[in-house]
Amino acid sequence: MDIATIIGIVLGFVVITSAIVVGGGWQIFIHLPSLAITIGGMLCATLIHFSLPQFLGIFAVVKKTIVAKIPSQSELIQRMVNYAAINRRDGALALEQEIGKVGDLFFVKGLQMLVDGQESEVIRDIMSLEIHNLEDRHSRGKKILEFMGAAAPAFGMIGTLIGLIQMLRSLESPEKIGSGMAVALLTTFYGALSANLIFIPLAGKLALYSKTETTAKEMIVEGICAIAGGDNPTAVREKMQAFISQSRREEVKANI
Amino acid sequence: MDIATIIGIVLGFVVITSAIVVGGGWQIFIHLPSLAITIGGMLCATLIHFSLPQFLGIFAVVKKTIVAKIPSQSELIQRMVNYAAINRRDGALALEQEIGKVGDLFFVKGLQMLVDGQESEVIRDIMSLEIHNLEDRHSRGKKILEFMGAAAPAFGMIGTLIGLIQMLRSLESPEKIGSGMAVALLTTFYGALSANLIFIPLAGKLALYSKTETTAKEMIVEGICAIAGGDNPTAVREKMQAFISQSRREEVKANI
Amino acid sequence: MDIATIIGIVLGFVVITSAIVVGGGWQIFIHLPSLAITIGGMLCATLIHFSLPQFLGIFAVVKKTIVAKIPSQSELIQRMVNYAAINRRDGALALEQEIGKVGDLFFVKGLQMLVDGQESEVIRDIMSLEIHNLEDRHSRGKKILEFMGAAAPAFGMIGTLIGLIQMLRSLESPEKIGSGMAVALLTTFYGALSANLIFIPLAGKLALYSKTETTAKEMIVEGICAIAGGDNPTAVREKMQAFISQSRREEVKANI
Amino acid sequence: MDIATIIGIVLGFVVITSAIVVGGGWQIFIHLPSLAITIGGMLCATLIHFSLPQFLGIFAVVKKTIVAKIPSQSELIQRMVNYAAINRRDGALALEQEIGKVGDLFFVKGLQMLVDGQESEVIRDIMSLEIHNLEDRHSRGKKILEFMGAAAPAFGMIGTLIGLIQMLRSLESPEKIGSGMAVALLTTFYGALSANLIFIPLAGKLALYSKTETTAKEMIVEGICAIAGGDNPTAVREKMQAFISQSRREEVKANI
Amino acid sequence: MDIATIIGIVLGFVVITSAIVVGGGWQIFIHLPSLAITIGGMLCATLIHFSLPQFLGIFAVVKKTIVAKIPSQSELIQRMVNYAAINRRDGALALEQEIGKVGDLFFVKGLQMLVDGQESEVIRDIMSLEIHNLEDRHSRGKKILEFMGAAAPAFGMIGTLIGLIQMLRSLESPEKIGSGMAVALLTTFYGALSANLIFIPLAGKLALYSKTETTAKEMIVEGICAIAGGDNPTAVREKMQAFISQSRREEVKANI
Repeated sequence: MDIATIIGIVLGFVVITSAIVVGGGWQIFIHLPSLAITIGGMLCATLIHFSLPQFLGIFAVVKKTIVAKIPSQSELIQRMVNYAAINRRDGALALEQEIGKVGDLFFVKGLQMLVDGQESEVIRDIMSLEIHNLEDRHSRGKKILEFMGAAAPAFGMIGTLIGLIQMLRSLESPEKIGSGMAVALLTTFYGALSANLIFIPLAGKLALYSKTETTAKEMIVEGICAIAGGDNPTAVREKMQAFISQSRREEVKANI
Repeated sequence: MDIATIIGIVLGFVVITSAIVVGGGWQIFIHLPSLAITIGGMLCATLIHFSLPQFLGIFAVVKKTIVAKIPSQSELIQRMVNYAAINRRDGALALEQEIGKVGDLFFVKGLQMLVDGQESEVIRDIMSLEIHNLEDRHSRGKKILEFMGAAAPAFGMIGTLIGLIQMLRSLESPEKIGSGMAVALLTTFYGALSANLIFIPLAGKLALYSKTETTAKEMIVEGICAIAGGDNPTAVREKMQAFISQSRREEVKANI
Repeated sequence: MDIATIIGIVLGFVVITSAIVVGGGWQIFIHLPSLAITIGGMLCATLIHFSLPQFLGIFAVVKKTIVAKIPSQSELIQRMVNYAAINRRDGALALEQEIGKVGDLFFVKGLQMLVDGQESEVIRDIMSLEIHNLEDRHSRGKKILEFMGAAAPAFGMIGTLIGLIQMLRSLESPEKIGSGMAVALLTTFYGALSANLIFIPLAGKLALYSKTETTAKEMIVEGICAIAGGDNPTAVREKMQAFISQSRREEVKANI
Repeated sequence: MDIATIIGIVLGFVVITSAIVVGGGWQIFIHLPSLAITIGGMLCATLIHFSLPQFLGIFAVVKKTIVAKIPSQSELIQRMVNYAAINRRDGALALEQEIGKVGDLFFVKGLQMLVDGQESEVIRDIMSLEIHNLEDRHSRGKKILEFMGAAAPAFGMIGTLIGLIQMLRSLESPEKIGSGMAVALLTTFYGALSANLIFIPLAGKLALYSKTETTAKEMIVEGICAIAGGDNPTAVREKMQAFISQSRREEVKANI
Repeated sequence: MDIATIIGIVLGFVVITSAIVVGGGWQIFIHLPSLAITIGGMLCATLIHFSLPQFLGIFAVVKKTIVAKIPSQSELIQRMVNYAAINRRDGALALEQEIGKVGDLFFVKGLQMLVDGQESEVIRDIMSLEIHNLEDRHSRGKKILEFMGAAAPAFGMIGTLIGLIQMLRSLESPEKIGSGMAVALLTTFYGALSANLIFIPLAGKLALYSKTETTAKEMIVEGICAIAGGDNPTAVREKMQAFISQSRREEVKANI
């Protein structure tokens, strides 16, 4: 669960909403047709740019970025050191009962191959390909969000142009000019707000999340391959600690 | 047939048209001289930037992106495994009658070289050059679409400047100001809409399509070269499956 | 002679001029002081950015892009195959009388070295350096055109600011506001039009032309070096055909 | 202590404030709700884009950029030459009493490893990893500042849109238009000023500082490893001087 | 002395000034507070971005770009061929009296090392480092000028915002609106003009100058190292001519 994303989005909307309410006339800021042009147009452009499965997948990717829990690096090391000790003491088959306690499907798959007695090289090949595919999915998700962040202001401007042209038609009735232009500017407002508070920052967060998850998965691969190669707990710990900086390394002992 | 592109374009125009019709005065949005400046100016700039054959080729490239059917990867593997089995059982000449059932010209050419008993290396060289030329054509098409997406708003702005200058001449007749500015803004509207709903997303889709088609063609080359090298159906399947991710691989058996 | 460039520029000006004439008041669009600010300012900035010889050379480069005739690739191959046959039959000296029939100075220089009995390696070194210098000149020309395409709208905006500031001085006489703003906008119009219809597309065309001419010159070098190395007509043809895609290769025979 | 940063920020605010005070009506430039939208919105977007620890760390990074004192290169060389002489004369243990005189924690850690008799290679590995982590932190800080410099004007524009829409509602009371638009423009002013006077230049200064500090730390590593390898003072000086340009090298002698 | 830069700047200001004088009311274009905001703000941001020595050094770098005289390549070759002949005939010491006739400090330093009998390799190492430092200084100067070219329009816009907000306060006195907005726009005018006529083109000229001077210095290094290695005048000429294109090479003979 990524706290910063939730705080940022909630607080951002509180700030913007307060500014609107304080200034008076918040009703004018809710205008469904304007929302339809900005968000609808942006979604249509996204559909043309990407394929249908990629487009539908973006929601799952974003949701995972916010709610997914990536195990901490020290937790991963502790767990893997325990498995190495169990493997040494009771053999790989004894790890079978540990599989049920693991939630992460990637981790489960790795342990299963370990229990099945697969070669270290085979495990590494198969799991590295999965990590590569994960990175691909994340980088595609980032591209989609960035495109949305560019398309939303563009369709906001298109909506404002439509509103301006319609308003200019009836320039002879001055009392309508103000409200006409206010409505015309709404699409630009929606486009700028959604791009700068949602799409662009989320694309950045997705890149950050991708790096964190990829590193965690690479540590799992490193650990499982070390166990499959018969390493003792200390060697497993050292191989996994190569991923983290000197100052954050801590002494870990098998705890079984 | 790429559903997403068609849905996106149709839905996009429905959204924009609805907004225009609901707001009233849709007639003002249809103005042929404004369309001529924006689209005409953009096409002229494209003609200057690129050569005549490249310019004329862009329509075929875009059309192919939308209507072309790329065989699915599992279908390609199934077909190639069958050919490998036929080749093993009856020899390469027996594949001649399969050629007629294949629609894709690239595939036909590869099979023909296989039947003619060409060396695996010769087939790979000739077909790789074709794939390379295909990628070149696609990347050039992408560049043209991106240039169009940049030139359309530019000529939209030029049209608006022309309209504004003409309107400002007759500032003494205030009743004309509104309609004059409305018409002036139309070219910017046309430019922004065509760029953001058509050219820029289509350039993205073309890049996506290029990658999918190139991968399919590379799988065909891999398969045909494997058969030409005398591989059995299982080896052919494994070589082709290296292109797709672990989780999507499925057991394929020769079905002849 | 590049037809597309000429069609594009002529048609572009026809489209823009029609729009101006149809809208009425074309006289206002011709304003020499505004033209002087936009184009003059842009040329001064270009002079500061580049050196005097580079600046003066750009006109020759652009002219060559439009009027130069690059021999077609099949024509080059045919000619070189003939020379190879003559060289085989009558020796290199017999090629001397062919030199007069060639218009391209680069080609003449290569043939002369061939007739003079220079080593294949020496010919390649000298001519490759010339090609490299040609590419340098072209890429510098492209940079100058791109800078012009960025500077013209900038000086257009500077001119508009000058006009606006002057107009705002006399805001008390409303009848002058309209014509004042119209004139002020003219420089932005000139800047946007010259950049988007001339400089930016020409920079693109120059890059395209550069690639085509360089490839032709590289084929000439390949052919002459092959003849200097004593290759027979068939070998010469094959070495030169490596530059063009499979589907466009044709059977060429010596025709002497 | 970086004088230029402090002079720049102070002088910049003096210039802007003078312009405001001279023009009259400075009270209108202080408007807390506008500040809340611009800075609050920007901070929220930054929170979504980055993680909580990264976000909180940026203040420490910036503060360090301004107040941290990096020892001069000649001072570093002098000190290290002295240590080499002490090490030669009295052995590594004699360096223990020098540790207390060093303020920089990185330097202390290196000296401690030297006193502890660690191998040259081990010292280099551990300290290089620390430098790498430092560069990572700096480059992340630069990215955050650059994002802030892009987000502040964006939220300034969003605030102006909100203000404009609210103002346009009450277009019938003309006396409110002026003050309404003035307040609306304030957010754009805050966004542009904070981005161009604070965030963007600070991102540049951080990159500069990062390079200077990294070079100093690399010189420390080079010197300590040379001493650990048993080099004499002259060899230590020469290895460290390889980091600085010929003209700035000076004769340094051990001074103990 | 770079003629193009001087012509460009002088002519550019003549063009802009003429346009202002012809339009009338040139007095309004001279407004010191506006100049202070634009140029002062830009200089403060530059101070924050770079360090004090870098900031102060930019003026020397720009001045050198305009007034420095780089010896022509053929002049360099002629001179070096003469030195090679003298060296052959009378030995390196005879070159001592030539040092006084050379103005360029870099050249003097090289000749001095030659006279002192330094090894060819040592000379190349020391002088290459100097060239590298020169390139560093130039590229930093280019970055500073480019930053100035981006900051000037930004502070111009900030000044315009300040002026607009102040003007909008007194919207009830319409006679002040015009002159208020005119003054407000002045800062944008100053920013755009200084960026597009001074900073951006000068950054380009600096890059060009850097390449020319670096090539000249590399030719000097090549020549001096060749003489130090005992090459005869012809070999020295050939080594130095490798830097210039075939068509511009000319026969050079020792002239002593």
